[in-house]
Amino acid sequence: MGNIPKIVIVGAGYGGILTAQQLQKELKHNEASVTLINRHDYHYITTHLHMPAAGTDTIEHSRIPIAQLIDEFKVDLVKGTVKEIIPKEKKIVLEDGSLSYDYLVIGLGGEPETFGIPGMDKFALTIRSINSVRLIREHIEYQLALYKNDGKPGRLNFVVGGAGFSGIEFVAELADRLPQLAKAYDIDFNRIQIINVEAAPTALPGFDPELVEYAMDVLKRKGVNFRIGIPIKECLEDGVIVGEGEKIEACTVVWTGGIRGNGLIEKAGFEVMRGRVKIDDFLRAPDHDDIFIIGDSSLMLNPEGRPYPPTAQIAMQQGVICAKNLVATLRNKELNKFVFSNKGTVASLGKGEAVAVVGKRKIKGWVAAQLKKIVDLRYLFIIGGIPLVLKKGRFF
Amino acid sequence: MGNIPKIVIVGAGYGGILTAQQLQKELKHNEASVTLINRHDYHYITTHLHMPAAGTDTIEHSRIPIAQLIDEFKVDLVKGTVKEIIPKEKKIVLEDGSLSYDYLVIGLGGEPETFGIPGMDKFALTIRSINSVRLIREHIEYQLALYKNDGKPGRLNFVVGGAGFSGIEFVAELADRLPQLAKAYDIDFNRIQIINVEAAPTALPGFDPELVEYAMDVLKRKGVNFRIGIPIKECLEDGVIVGEGEKIEACTVVWTGGIRGNGLIEKAGFEVMRGRVKIDDFLRAPDHDDIFIIGDSSLMLNPEGRPYPPTAQIAMQQGVICAKNLVATLRNKELNKFVFSNKGTVASLGKGEAVAVVGKRKIKGWVAAQLKKIVDLRYLFIIGGIPLVLKKGRFF
Ligand SMILES: Cc1cc2nc3c(=O)[nH]c(=O)nc-3n(C[C@H](O)[C@H](O)[C@H](O)COP(=O)(O)OP(=O)(O)OC[C@H]3O[C@@H](n4cnc5c(N)ncnc54)[C@H](O)[C@@H]3O)c2cc1C
Ligand SMILES: Cc1cc2nc3c(=O)[nH]c(=O)nc-3n(C[C@H](O)[C@H](O)[C@H](O)COP(=O)(O)OP(=O)(O)OC[C@H]3O[C@@H](n4cnc5c(N)ncnc54)[C@H](O)[C@@H]3O)c2cc1C
Repeated sequence: MGNIPKIVIVGAGYGGILTAQQLQKELKHNEASVTLINRHDYHYITTHLHMPAAGTDTIEHSRIPIAQLIDEFKVDLVKGTVKEIIPKEKKIVLEDGSLSYDYLVIGLGGEPETFGIPGMDKFALTIRSINSVRLIREHIEYQLALYKNDGKPGRLNFVVGGAGFSGIEFVAELADRLPQLAKAYDIDFNRIQIINVEAAPTALPGFDPELVEYAMDVLKRKGVNFRIGIPIKECLEDGVIVGEGEKIEACTVVWTGGIRGNGLIEKAGFEVMRGRVKIDDFLRAPDHDDIFIIGDSSLMLNPEGRPYPPTAQIAMQQGVICAKNLVATLRNKELNKFVFSNKGTVASLGKGEAVAVVGKRKIKGWVAAQLKKIVDLRYLFIIGGIPLVLKKGRFF
Repeated sequence: MGNIPKIVIVGAGYGGILTAQQLQKELKHNEASVTLINRHDYHYITTHLHMPAAGTDTIEHSRIPIAQLIDEFKVDLVKGTVKEIIPKEKKIVLEDGSLSYDYLVIGLGGEPETFGIPGMDKFALTIRSINSVRLIREHIEYQLALYKNDGKPGRLNFVVGGAGFSGIEFVAELADRLPQLAKAYDIDFNRIQIINVEAAPTALPGFDPELVEYAMDVLKRKGVNFRIGIPIKECLEDGVIVGEGEKIEACTVVWTGGIRGNGLIEKAGFEVMRGRVKIDDFLRAPDHDDIFIIGDSSLMLNPEGRPYPPTAQIAMQQGVICAKNLVATLRNKELNKFVFSNKGTVASLGKGEAVAVVGKRKIKGWVAAQLKKIVDLRYLFIIGGIPLVLKKGRFF
């Protein structure tokens, strides 16, 4: 086997899974070995995580055993946590063991970017994995249970930092969920506050202003208090300091305000901007033709010279091209330039409500909510076909 | 109305509800006014609380709106928290307001007795109300969620202090519940420890030794570690110190080791033993013919001169006699001596298992578990008839 090139993919997120699946399809027998390394034995659907985080959906709708997505005759699965990437030695160090590679695909996703706001790392919760969202869900219920025993008012205040897509989607689920929880804990929902704090001058920065207004109206009616254009200055155990020093009491702070590249990449010696590596048109790290970086850990500029925001959509498209380029490299063929094809953007606003932009069309309300479901089902179909759609799809 | 004697019942637990219901039956129109004061607008079935505490049953099976149990034409319901009882002024001070009485029934139940063990008040959870058991349930899940994020081993250890009836019943539910939770949180159940610590030389002190052995066998097979004959010396935030200084790491400590009378009673100036007032044969406080004390706040000696243990059974029987004696007092008739009639004792050991003593018969296993259900259904029938049995009964 010594002569077969060894491809190692670290991270089985959107990018990593699509790469592995495309390699499965394109590689000939014994053309290369492929190893997929991931911290858990499941793939999670990050774009869903705001729901189990708020408790409006189960965890099981948001994850899939990787073994169900991959042909284990063609791809070796390794459950392991990457500790270090050593490009010079073409080596990956895991928590227990290490691996060498000929070609490496880095799809390790992102990490919360706290912009150095004091206390944010320590006290805020973040939506980024199954474990982190289970913690948010339990933290919320625990606060209500504690409130009924100690009466501390901050327990009834829920601060969400950031009103970007994931912040807005999470706030919407919270607004759906908390009235139910209030009832289950004998708490008057009017005493509960959901506060969405955003430093930028608008919610959903960069999105269509008309749809932003619609989204905020929907959420305000559900009980969300917006504090837009107001930066969080510090996060404490029992609240946040905002603006000119005002304190908002809250025993729950969820931070969705930013994403940076996975910290391992900077540690590996790559030059980064907010933890992300500016990759070439073929998705390769600069000066490393053997290393592809895709998804939230990579940085690509759009034709106007501005970075694409990190999304599942781009990570998936990159995964496919990354696989194609690996195959081309092995076969000494010309590589494919990555060109992003924007399928549109949908932001869910909780049950039965959403806003979307598809091409030049603006869509809102129930129709947009259906679109969101179709996007989700489409993803399940892409990675797992009809059986996965039937098993994990949320149709209602 | 000035001439109508005013009966006030504080506490709508087993004793208070039965008193109110019996008064409803026996009092003639305008013979007396009856006011029932309780902290919540629901009655809780304390003998069930180990189940929602562990999460093996919902809260709603363990509580009933008091309005459903009481004829509001005959008894005034006041939702309020008693702050002080002033026997000299025949007055009850509530959190908001105050009331005077001609006759008072105290059925305020008990409080955890921590025997002065340092830290127990502060760090241990206790099973005593809907709010406190919701907190236990959420605390447990929160530990598992935290474990998956910080890996602290003490989060997987669950210490129950006390192996009396409520300790054993709770430990049994925990042993049923934790394997399910372990699965839901992707934790190997073998890493979870349930540790039941008891200072007395045996579990279920006072109970039939053969049944105690049976009970311990059942629970050991379910995974419970017993530390019998070993006192807890101190409770910390992250564990307990036992025996000669050994520390058991545990982020969850539930204390079931003792019950004392409600603290308001001692504050009212009555002479107490462990917070309980030694009442006369007619259930009256010494030197206060206008004050009846029943249930966990009262102390009565059995024919052998030993105190009856505080149980729902005795509280209910006292409630009925208390009402009869109030009516007799109003009518200047002779009062009834309270005589306890022991219907037997059942301890649940979780799903499908229990131990019971009824008269001289020892019963164990499935039959005893059915008996436990019958006792529970019988109680619902007594206080609410068939409709309540159908609404709140757990038949399976
Ligand atoms: C609440 C929320 C809603 C979103 N909604 C949308 C949306 O509607 N549309 C959209 O396009 N995008 C959305 N996004 C963004 C999208 O989820 C991300 O851009 C996408 O997941 C990035 O994919 P990725 O492959 O780079 O990484 P990820 O999908 O994050 O996967 C990274 C993988 O690497 C693994 N990993 C990480 N570190 C290690 C390590 N040290 N060792 C081993 N394995 C490791 C992780 O376990 C994970 O499996 C949303 C994000 C959030 C948080
Ligand atoms: C887990 C567990 C299992 C048990 N199992 C059994 C069993 O199987 N069989 C058995 O016989 N016994 C059992 N017991 C014991 C039994 O529950 C008690 O003995 C019984 O509840 C005592 O009744 P009570 O009327 O004195 O008080 P409680 O039933 O405790 O009621 C007291 C009431 O007073 C109210 N109250 C308290 N303070 C105030 C205030 N300041 N102001 C207003 N209202 C107030 C409370 O809200 C409550 O409604 C068990 C106990 C526990 C904890």
